[in-house]
Amino acid sequence: MIEDLHELIASRPAGHSLPRAFYTSPDVYRLDVDVVLRRHWNFVGHESAIPQAGDYLVCEHDLDSAVVVRGDDGEVRALANVCRHRGSRICSEPAGQARHGLRCPYHLWIYNLDGSLRKAPWLGPDVDTSTLGLVPMPVEVCQGLIFVSFSDEPLDFGGVRRALDDALGSFGWSDATVAHEERFSFSANWKLALENQVECYHCLPSHPEFARVHAMARTGSEGAASDVMDGWAMQGEPGAELYFSSDNALQGCALTGTEDGEAVGPLMGPADATGNFVVAYAGIVNHFLAYADYGCALRYAPKSALETDLTVTWLVPNGARPGLDYDLERLTWMWRVTVAEDLRIVSENQRGVSSSAYRPGPYVMPIESKTLRLTDWYLQELSGAVRP
Amino acid sequence: MIEDLHELIASRPAGHSLPRAFYTSPDVYRLDVDVVLRRHWNFVGHESAIPQAGDYLVCEHDLDSAVVVRGDDGEVRALANVCRHRGSRICSEPAGQARHGLRCPYHLWIYNLDGSLRKAPWLGPDVDTSTLGLVPMPVEVCQGLIFVSFSDEPLDFGGVRRALDDALGSFGWSDATVAHEERFSFSANWKLALENQVECYHCLPSHPEFARVHAMARTGSEGAASDVMDGWAMQGEPGAELYFSSDNALQGCALTGTEDGEAVGPLMGPADATGNFVVAYAGIVNHFLAYADYGCALRYAPKSALETDLTVTWLVPNGARPGLDYDLERLTWMWRVTVAEDLRIVSENQRGVSSSAYRPGPYVMPIESKTLRLTDWYLQELSGAVRP
Amino acid sequence: MIEDLHELIASRPAGHSLPRAFYTSPDVYRLDVDVVLRRHWNFVGHESAIPQAGDYLVCEHDLDSAVVVRGDDGEVRALANVCRHRGSRICSEPAGQARHGLRCPYHLWIYNLDGSLRKAPWLGPDVDTSTLGLVPMPVEVCQGLIFVSFSDEPLDFGGVRRALDDALGSFGWSDATVAHEERFSFSANWKLALENQVECYHCLPSHPEFARVHAMARTGSEGAASDVMDGWAMQGEPGAELYFSSDNALQGCALTGTEDGEAVGPLMGPADATGNFVVAYAGIVNHFLAYADYGCALRYAPKSALETDLTVTWLVPNGARPGLDYDLERLTWMWRVTVAEDLRIVSENQRGVSSSAYRPGPYVMPIESKTLRLTDWYLQELSGAVRP
Repeated sequence: MIEDLHELIASRPAGHSLPRAFYTSPDVYRLDVDVVLRRHWNFVGHESAIPQAGDYLVCEHDLDSAVVVRGDDGEVRALANVCRHRGSRICSEPAGQARHGLRCPYHLWIYNLDGSLRKAPWLGPDVDTSTLGLVPMPVEVCQGLIFVSFSDEPLDFGGVRRALDDALGSFGWSDATVAHEERFSFSANWKLALENQVECYHCLPSHPEFARVHAMARTGSEGAASDVMDGWAMQGEPGAELYFSSDNALQGCALTGTEDGEAVGPLMGPADATGNFVVAYAGIVNHFLAYADYGCALRYAPKSALETDLTVTWLVPNGARPGLDYDLERLTWMWRVTVAEDLRIVSENQRGVSSSAYRPGPYVMPIESKTLRLTDWYLQELSGAVRP
Repeated sequence: MIEDLHELIASRPAGHSLPRAFYTSPDVYRLDVDVVLRRHWNFVGHESAIPQAGDYLVCEHDLDSAVVVRGDDGEVRALANVCRHRGSRICSEPAGQARHGLRCPYHLWIYNLDGSLRKAPWLGPDVDTSTLGLVPMPVEVCQGLIFVSFSDEPLDFGGVRRALDDALGSFGWSDATVAHEERFSFSANWKLALENQVECYHCLPSHPEFARVHAMARTGSEGAASDVMDGWAMQGEPGAELYFSSDNALQGCALTGTEDGEAVGPLMGPADATGNFVVAYAGIVNHFLAYADYGCALRYAPKSALETDLTVTWLVPNGARPGLDYDLERLTWMWRVTVAEDLRIVSENQRGVSSSAYRPGPYVMPIESKTLRLTDWYLQELSGAVRP
Repeated sequence: MIEDLHELIASRPAGHSLPRAFYTSPDVYRLDVDVVLRRHWNFVGHESAIPQAGDYLVCEHDLDSAVVVRGDDGEVRALANVCRHRGSRICSEPAGQARHGLRCPYHLWIYNLDGSLRKAPWLGPDVDTSTLGLVPMPVEVCQGLIFVSFSDEPLDFGGVRRALDDALGSFGWSDATVAHEERFSFSANWKLALENQVECYHCLPSHPEFARVHAMARTGSEGAASDVMDGWAMQGEPGAELYFSSDNALQGCALTGTEDGEAVGPLMGPADATGNFVVAYAGIVNHFLAYADYGCALRYAPKSALETDLTVTWLVPNGARPGLDYDLERLTWMWRVTVAEDLRIVSENQRGVSSSAYRPGPYVMPIESKTLRLTDWYLQELSGAVRP
């Protein structure tokens, strides 16, 4: 496999999409998860979703699962969602309350909110329970956004933090409220889903609703952006997480990213950002959109060589109430419609790429430059990781 | 694998069904598709379904997909259904109209009906678009029946053409009309589906409706056939596609292959063929039945080691109208009922063959001689293809 | 694989649950079925379900299938459910009547009830039909319970027979009647399903209904049991099937294992066993519970590395009639509820064990001693079987 892989990497024509096996092979997928993505950060949710001690969120990534829980000391911690007894998953719901400790429902082992084992029925006094705490995982919080890594040695988060503080600081995200969350399943490799996510070449033909209010659909994202912070998918600092952010114009008189361009509720943050929106990437799989009156967080999670989940979280100003301050249908309309279209086009892309007639094709410059950077970076990472 | 394969091939007792792995192994399946079936022809549909420039049909085979489209010049062409940009499938429906060119919905690359790239938004003038046409695929039309091959070097079609012209010429198929098309999915290896298709030993116990009006259910197909053209599944001409046709008697006073043996509509073609029916094979996976008043085309398409699709197309005389000239339910009854039975028996066959207690059993001569020829030929092809 | 396997076996910390691959790998699963489980016995059903010649039951195990049929001579025989002609499954329903012989529906080969081939249409006189009987399989009947093995060299049944006679003799199971049978599917490896089945550590937190009437939920099974016969999952007699039985107390005033502890119908057998219940294991996958008024048989059947079926059969006294002598809902309530809970906890166990954060954890002694014995025994068997 490793030997084939070097050949496979070498077979990719410069500037073109990847050879088929990168999008279809279960062996490549295993390397993707274990080698390429392992050290990166994954968006879990917003701090406002876990205000009290014991409140938790669950984050899944491939076959792994983490519980992000607020401790009695107010700290947010991430713990592997796997009982140290016989390995049962502890929390099976996406979110919940564990004020009295994290209880494995199977044999009722109870863990403190810092992960240490509090009580295990029938366990003899000779067993050293200090070694039986839940496996701790790296966690970071920035602008209210919680991230976990599924590696012991995660990438340095500093650059991402600076970029998110700079890009989102004026939108008041740090004390925003979660309005809605929804999960979608793509029948496609995670790389095809992300290649699609980072280019707006397809916006005009495939996203007419988005194109009506976002200028980048006509210009390509690069041209329309100002205030760019760019540390994304390049061989910049080794060991550092990737980031990107840009300030972008809305189309015509649109104030925000809604069906009619009108605001759907109270504005977010100290500054009035109507007419503009910010796009920020934190790591590989997490994308954020900040509009004047709402925010949108997208996280892609690989499930298998041919399946990828996408979770979309909508943010509103601190304390804004559905039905009173905003209408949930109007708030979520743009990205529900856009993601539904992405589901279709990305799965059609996978079907074509899976066929024997597929040949890598040329990315169109400069409008697909981020897609090219993503795939170039990916091959570089994979190549480095499997170097003989 | 290759070494094991030679052993596996050698382990098959002469005159018996194949050892288990040929019916279950994903590795063998891959060779089946890429080596044994690749150069053969696949029935796509009837010319009458694409009368106008831009009319197209889609044909799937394993993970591959072809668009068969009528050009502005009236020619029928086959093109890989894969955009040369990022590999998206272009046509997602089984049939449609592309008068203004084949448009990839993803980024709106537009191809002329001959496959050449007409327009790609944002693509710079430095890119040589003449190399970015849709990959052309071999296509043949005979008696109105359209065939494609998924290989650059398809088998010679001459023998098939002569056989079909001879067998079907008097049925007026070249200007027939498609009355109906239906797709079925078998939970079985493609070889089990075909072994079943080419013998009528099972007709009496498993197809009572078919047996009532087809004499071969009582006699075995060989005995009842006259006017046989036989170039099928034998080591005849290397590089030539296989074919077979025979003229067969209906049972008793039956005029055609319907529930009651009565004609369901106007007769097809110049000659009156009541009381008889023709069976023709073109290649491995395509089977045709010509009755006096209707035609039936069956194409098997392998999907995985344990899944096979079957598409059935019903033909009626040129211009015949449902409800007026024929009743669609009556027209399609015999082969809907028969295929539904085949679905059940072939999937039960697969379940037994998948078990560890399965041992190759003796084909019964002469009534299963075509099934034996098929499996003998298959092993020969496989053996040749992987010769050290 | 074999080399890796020795390392994998060696990597298991003593007294702990198994390393991940034993619960997830398709390669290990194949060895489990072909090497570890092959020679063991599988409970099929109760004799009373096949009183007449030609009555049969079907038993599935991985991809294998056996027909257990009563012969014209009254004997119960087991035969591979695979036609010797082209390998079709012969009986597709879980139970049925074949008074006139076992007929393969495909080509109507007919077998006598002893498996010999009676008739094959069109088969020439030159074929030696004496070699074409259905493959016979080992079968044992004890206390009315029918067992089959899918190996030519099954483990010796003597110890099991003595244990079952001793444990169940006073419950009148040999002439019991089957009241109900139900099949459940676990999304988990068969070993996780069985590790769960053989410990009652989880009963108190996970089975409140069971715990209300079974004392072992509070004490752990070992402490509460008397009259123990123990030849289970230890390196005792090579070549002998495993067995275990114990007599256990019900909780408080409960008379039997029902929702309210009250009897649901007439008592079984010569002795009054109210207030107690017997647990018996026969082999690895078959578990029996004998209450004063009903019996319950559980058989686990592996389907793939991540799927296991469980069939539950309820027994009542000879001739007891639903609606008159007992209420079927009340009779089956306890074990329907308990198995539904097991379905959930075992699949949650699998999800945790599948994740990269899983590490083998310590079994808790003595309450999980059978689970430890099971896994120790399993590794021993696997290790012996693949010894270089």
